[in-house]
Amino acid sequence: MAVYQTSDLTAASFSVALFGLAATTVLLMLGSAWVGRKWRLPVALCAIAALVGIGSVFEAREAWLAGQGVPVVYHYVGWSVSMPLQVMALFFLARTAGRLSAGLFWRLVVVSALMVFVRYLGEAQFMHPTLAFLIGLVFWLYLLGEFYFGRMDDVIRSSTGDYLRRGYFWLRLIVTVGWAIYPLGNFLTAFAGMTDDGSLSIAYNLADILNRMAFGVAVLATAALVTEETAHA
Amino acid sequence: MAVYQTSDLTAASFSVALFGLAATTVLLMLGSAWVGRKWRLPVALCAIAALVGIGSVFEAREAWLAGQGVPVVYHYVGWSVSMPLQVMALFFLARTAGRLSAGLFWRLVVVSALMVFVRYLGEAQFMHPTLAFLIGLVFWLYLLGEFYFGRMDDVIRSSTGDYLRRGYFWLRLIVTVGWAIYPLGNFLTAFAGMTDDGSLSIAYNLADILNRMAFGVAVLATAALVTEETAHA
Amino acid sequence: MAVYQTSDLTAASFSVALFGLAATTVLLMLGSAWVGRKWRLPVALCAIAALVGIGSVFEAREAWLAGQGVPVVYHYVGWSVSMPLQVMALFFLARTAGRLSAGLFWRLVVVSALMVFVRYLGEAQFMHPTLAFLIGLVFWLYLLGEFYFGRMDDVIRSSTGDYLRRGYFWLRLIVTVGWAIYPLGNFLTAFAGMTDDGSLSIAYNLADILNRMAFGVAVLATAALVTEETAHA
Amino acid sequence: MAVYQTSDLTAASFSVALFGLAATTVLLMLGSAWVGRKWRLPVALCAIAALVGIGSVFEAREAWLAGQGVPVVYHYVGWSVSMPLQVMALFFLARTAGRLSAGLFWRLVVVSALMVFVRYLGEAQFMHPTLAFLIGLVFWLYLLGEFYFGRMDDVIRSSTGDYLRRGYFWLRLIVTVGWAIYPLGNFLTAFAGMTDDGSLSIAYNLADILNRMAFGVAVLATAALVTEETAHA
Amino acid sequence: MAVYQTSDLTAASFSVALFGLAATTVLLMLGSAWVGRKWRLPVALCAIAALVGIGSVFEAREAWLAGQGVPVVYHYVGWSVSMPLQVMALFFLARTAGRLSAGLFWRLVVVSALMVFVRYLGEAQFMHPTLAFLIGLVFWLYLLGEFYFGRMDDVIRSSTGDYLRRGYFWLRLIVTVGWAIYPLGNFLTAFAGMTDDGSLSIAYNLADILNRMAFGVAVLATAALVTEETAHA
Repeated sequence: MAVYQTSDLTAASFSVALFGLAATTVLLMLGSAWVGRKWRLPVALCAIAALVGIGSVFEAREAWLAGQGVPVVYHYVGWSVSMPLQVMALFFLARTAGRLSAGLFWRLVVVSALMVFVRYLGEAQFMHPTLAFLIGLVFWLYLLGEFYFGRMDDVIRSSTGDYLRRGYFWLRLIVTVGWAIYPLGNFLTAFAGMTDDGSLSIAYNLADILNRMAFGVAVLATAALVTEETAHA
Repeated sequence: MAVYQTSDLTAASFSVALFGLAATTVLLMLGSAWVGRKWRLPVALCAIAALVGIGSVFEAREAWLAGQGVPVVYHYVGWSVSMPLQVMALFFLARTAGRLSAGLFWRLVVVSALMVFVRYLGEAQFMHPTLAFLIGLVFWLYLLGEFYFGRMDDVIRSSTGDYLRRGYFWLRLIVTVGWAIYPLGNFLTAFAGMTDDGSLSIAYNLADILNRMAFGVAVLATAALVTEETAHA
Repeated sequence: MAVYQTSDLTAASFSVALFGLAATTVLLMLGSAWVGRKWRLPVALCAIAALVGIGSVFEAREAWLAGQGVPVVYHYVGWSVSMPLQVMALFFLARTAGRLSAGLFWRLVVVSALMVFVRYLGEAQFMHPTLAFLIGLVFWLYLLGEFYFGRMDDVIRSSTGDYLRRGYFWLRLIVTVGWAIYPLGNFLTAFAGMTDDGSLSIAYNLADILNRMAFGVAVLATAALVTEETAHA
Repeated sequence: MAVYQTSDLTAASFSVALFGLAATTVLLMLGSAWVGRKWRLPVALCAIAALVGIGSVFEAREAWLAGQGVPVVYHYVGWSVSMPLQVMALFFLARTAGRLSAGLFWRLVVVSALMVFVRYLGEAQFMHPTLAFLIGLVFWLYLLGEFYFGRMDDVIRSSTGDYLRRGYFWLRLIVTVGWAIYPLGNFLTAFAGMTDDGSLSIAYNLADILNRMAFGVAVLATAALVTEETAHA
Repeated sequence: MAVYQTSDLTAASFSVALFGLAATTVLLMLGSAWVGRKWRLPVALCAIAALVGIGSVFEAREAWLAGQGVPVVYHYVGWSVSMPLQVMALFFLARTAGRLSAGLFWRLVVVSALMVFVRYLGEAQFMHPTLAFLIGLVFWLYLLGEFYFGRMDDVIRSSTGDYLRRGYFWLRLIVTVGWAIYPLGNFLTAFAGMTDDGSLSIAYNLADILNRMAFGVAVLATAALVTEETAHA
């Protein structure tokens, strides 16, 4: 194992992301047993998204320590699994408040997987970068559309739970703000010809802390508060 | 650990399969504790099939990164354990609907193990490739015959559960379509003299996503829906 | 990690044993929580025997891939832990049917551990091979004697459970047939001067599939069937 | 893996910290299932802090064995995750006694994370060391202020539980005394120009034994005693 | 990973200790969930002592296979964690029978940790070997005194449980006999100038089998028998 120095901020950010994701995974795994029945699935999905993050961050750090920058594919591999998982978590979170169609579920999962895949194709030059960027953007906007104006928003709005509405509001915000960094990074590497000298990885690691750790903990907190609220009602 | 580049689609597909299988394993492991008593075994068997997949995909990726292509034996080693497990999962899924003989169980397990073993013998030139291909094909058709026209189909048909029937329909379809890629790959490498330049591994990894991940998740979903249905009945 | 080729049947058999033992371990671990109280211990002991097998098969495969054959000590290390565990499993399986003395327990454990140890001393030339072979044989026959004509057989015979009797019959048969390969291998390497060119390891791996996997699954199946039978009685 | 000699006290202290943290992690993980509902979260958070410690101590030891001293970043990476976790544990411990605002929670978490981050910036020369040291000191004093004179202390004081009050007293003392070593070490490396020849790592490892192991075990003991007390009341 | 040969008895003893400790760890972990409430802690502490043993034996074996003997520090690192854990296990075992003071607990833990630490200081020449040996001996005799004539013995004697008294008798005997090998080894290496050519490690591995495996299994057996006895009373 290569040793990194104190001044290597990129390696430090990878390590913090690595240990933070490990802590998040274990907390959410344990937490999935503490919440009400309906809430186990969304919490578990967030735990699994964090678990996958451990693997992809670990491998990206190895690549970084090997000394030639981090090929962007390492980030995409992790996202290709964790993003559909998080979209599923949001779906099942909304589903605790009311019926949602299986069709919506499949649309969300497939679109989020395609969004990552198309961006990757652009980055790897298998597809024209501009085209890939635009298609990826459309997919992302579609997801945001579903979260803000779709059936999930309706169901949450009509729910009686106060904590659930507030939780959904914050989670949607995390997805809106936190996921915006990915098309931005995609834009910079694909058009501005930027190569990753470590600073892009730092940005992605910070985004991971927001998107995987804060997202998961917010789902667990919502689940715990709603479970408590329901028990007292 | 060798570092792979963004344009190495084969390595990326191995990594996605690796993380996807890890996510599936954990989800199904957790899920096996959420479903009704009778359903724990089929869900657990799918979880174990995905777990074995983690190991075999990891080793296949190591072989790929070592730079000389992936010897096809790496795929066969994984299948030799996961295919009998999945056939068992389908058997115990059907058994939740009615009595099935132990003899059928052993026939299914032995035939599915032999199917993989015979194909391997052909690939490794320990047996004449044409003969091995044909025997493997016969074994596969036997399995399909049992699933479509055998006792398992009878038991499912006569069951009252709507979700169970639909679940069995989809699972059988996955096995029919998804497993068809293996004799096809077997045919191409054994007769057409194709050597794996990475594209065969990509195809096998895609098949894994369908056969191990979608299959397992479908079993879990069926189990969860039937458990819910039974609880309300 | 060294890459092995498709034609390396020994490496393939190690890998199949490795993944098969991992699958068995997880299945039995999960299964030990599904059976009746008295049955948890025998199932858990089989799970642990399979777990130890993962470690010893993994290390034996590393030795094989390093290219100089597998020193037979790798097999003995695994057996020295797994064989006493399996004898214990059989003891606690019989004890579900009636009282057995602690003295019998210690005799079985010590004799099975000594059997492996003496054979090892012979293989390593620390003891005269013929003498070691004969002492090992006597220990093995003693164990078989206990299983066929001893107190365990009495207790099982007088039990009312049909599944228990049948399970004990099959498990005893596995031990009789499956464990016979070890003195045979011991004989071949110690007297016939055979060195392991890979075929002995294949034979031992096949024996492992029978002795660790089939044995453990048979214990789990017996436990599950007896638990069900008792619940309905 | 490099082999270290008996006289290498630094390596020995890393190894003792490593195994001690592993033991603590497992004990607290198991223990979190033994205590009352409200106590599971603080115990689990301490378990996770110890788990993260395993990773960071392991990597620090690797760096040490590679022979060029331990870059201080290895310690900071671990603290950046474990310190906020321990502050959270103390918060949720106090919360078992009464209502605490979510605002206080976020202040504690953010301040403890910033404290570690600012010190790191100073050590890595990204910020002026004196400034970083002073800001870190202010953050630490703020945390101590909250623990001694803030809302948490009020809530504990007004609680009826004797064990809880005593537990909080000891835990606060551990944080006060045990965490004092970090600004001290920070001072020595940042101003006195001290480089780590191993003795600083020994001091940090001893501090870890106090801060992560004793802290976690004290939380578990408090939780167990309060749970017992409540059950008898 | 270095490959060891069949005639390397030291490597074989390390491997047997490694797999045996792994088996013990898993058995005790599972077992801690099978026994009565009060018994979970002593069983879990023995499980953790065995778990720590896995780590230290694994690293000692790596050192041995690297070819320059096993620096004695590898043994001491393991003992520094496992011995206090086992003394705690004995304390909590006695505490199931009656009240014991927290002061006694801390004396036992601190003395057992110091015993290992002082011996290490002697071996590493940080302290005069004779002095270290004598102090270590005094600490050991103090522990034996507590076990034979102290408050723990009183509590056990006055307990009504037959199995508990017998279990305590055997466990104390294991500690008396099994731990005697450590001062003996300490004496030989410190005074007789013996360096470890492998035979000392074999002796220590045998002692581990007695002290960690037999000790843990005896605690589990006592716990299981007492739990059963109490349930029937």
